[in-house]
Amino acid sequence: MSEHVKNGQAAGDSAHDSGPGEVILLGGGPGPADLMTLRAHRALAEADVVYYDRLAPSDGLRDWAPQAELYDVGKRPGHHRIPQEKIQAMMIASAAAGKTVVRLKGGDPYVFGRGSEESQACREAGIPVRVIPGISSALAVPAVAGIPVTARGVARSVTVISAHDPLSEEEFSGLSALGGTIVVLMGVSTMGHTLMGLQRHGMRGTPAAVIENGYSDRQRVFIDTVDSLLSTTAAAAVRSPAVLVIGEVVRLAADHDEAADQRIRDLAGALL
Amino acid sequence: MSEHVKNGQAAGDSAHDSGPGEVILLGGGPGPADLMTLRAHRALAEADVVYYDRLAPSDGLRDWAPQAELYDVGKRPGHHRIPQEKIQAMMIASAAAGKTVVRLKGGDPYVFGRGSEESQACREAGIPVRVIPGISSALAVPAVAGIPVTARGVARSVTVISAHDPLSEEEFSGLSALGGTIVVLMGVSTMGHTLMGLQRHGMRGTPAAVIENGYSDRQRVFIDTVDSLLSTTAAAAVRSPAVLVIGEVVRLAADHDEAADQRIRDLAGALL
Repeated sequence: MSEHVKNGQAAGDSAHDSGPGEVILLGGGPGPADLMTLRAHRALAEADVVYYDRLAPSDGLRDWAPQAELYDVGKRPGHHRIPQEKIQAMMIASAAAGKTVVRLKGGDPYVFGRGSEESQACREAGIPVRVIPGISSALAVPAVAGIPVTARGVARSVTVISAHDPLSEEEFSGLSALGGTIVVLMGVSTMGHTLMGLQRHGMRGTPAAVIENGYSDRQRVFIDTVDSLLSTTAAAAVRSPAVLVIGEVVRLAADHDEAADQRIRDLAGALL
Repeated sequence: MSEHVKNGQAAGDSAHDSGPGEVILLGGGPGPADLMTLRAHRALAEADVVYYDRLAPSDGLRDWAPQAELYDVGKRPGHHRIPQEKIQAMMIASAAAGKTVVRLKGGDPYVFGRGSEESQACREAGIPVRVIPGISSALAVPAVAGIPVTARGVARSVTVISAHDPLSEEEFSGLSALGGTIVVLMGVSTMGHTLMGLQRHGMRGTPAAVIENGYSDRQRVFIDTVDSLLSTTAAAAVRSPAVLVIGEVVRLAADHDEAADQRIRDLAGALL
């Protein structure tokens, strides 16, 4: 990366001018800026360069990282995408030039964020890497829909699985034997296959939910059972990003309706 | 709860005097205060009462929640503990008295935090409840030891399971069929049983790690295989809290040694 002037200051004017910089793999959490950690906000405030993903919180990036060069390297479905290798090369080049590089991701960098690959590429290039964990959408998106992924006497395990590629028979059999909560990420295009597989393995009547656009103002939640969820989501034209949750814990959602709570608070306020 | 004076102000002197208060189930994350979210810190700053657990970040509570009454309701192994029903009754009584009650937990309230029970108890008592998610130790403690719980081509699923009660044959068979990463919480006293079960199901040589006191300055990491981990941890007298991680991702830990990175940074600094 060539050096250039930003905010009236040369990009090279930092304390680590003469050594290598570093790469910080940063988990941005499930969406809202205030669900990022203090450590995340501090890292952004000190960043020279930020490479951010499509699902990372980014609306306020200009304020959170006022001195940084900002690069949107998000991969939008159906749009031209920057290849993973190119992103890694850019991060490494920036850090090799002495910069503090933040790689901002949605959720947690080590939960399907390709953080492992990026970390390894940096190390192979001799660039120090740090990981700052974030709240994984896999656990927090069910919560915002009122679904606890574990509950005493109901589920003592939770499996988070990517269905970007269709699940195998062996995986279906494992999930069925475990009998805990299943959270499927990247699972919209393969949802029919997933639900059919779970039905074949004895989970026809198990409660199932889909949360589309969790934590956004376009959030939609569909609660059903494994055997009929697909017709519901197809009729509603559910699209990515969406989180699929299967298990008895889904039954608890009815007791956890946060919107209803808000109405109770509003009502209490109006009565005063 | 009886009303009393704190910080020169009557406890009842708040805006929600005449209505019910609310309970906030708050995830405090894996330990360090700066791995709490902005939303968590704001909730603490506005709390009237905080009930906190043993594994929740609490060293700075007096500063984070300057106006709040603070109650340590943590359950220390071997010590007198406050029964779960009593904790719930206290929370409900405080909120019914119009107070904003924060229930501060380690990790995430819905990942083995008994958050589901507490949430349900509040609802049954007519008390509004909100959940603020936190970074789960189940995913973040492996990360701080350099272990990504998922990695492309290595593991596309991660199962988090509590071994407070010993795992069943069916669970062992499910975990084995899944072939992904396994994270065992509350698993120190049952570790022998867990490792024997995994061996019976074909995982004798699978890499395994134990991280004791993750994120603290007493953190210890042991990396081994399923068949020999127990003798290692027994010799080292590993104690709770400790996270057990089993799967091929453990092999990646060697490439992710943050301590080594720090030494590289220190060396680079000394050379300038």
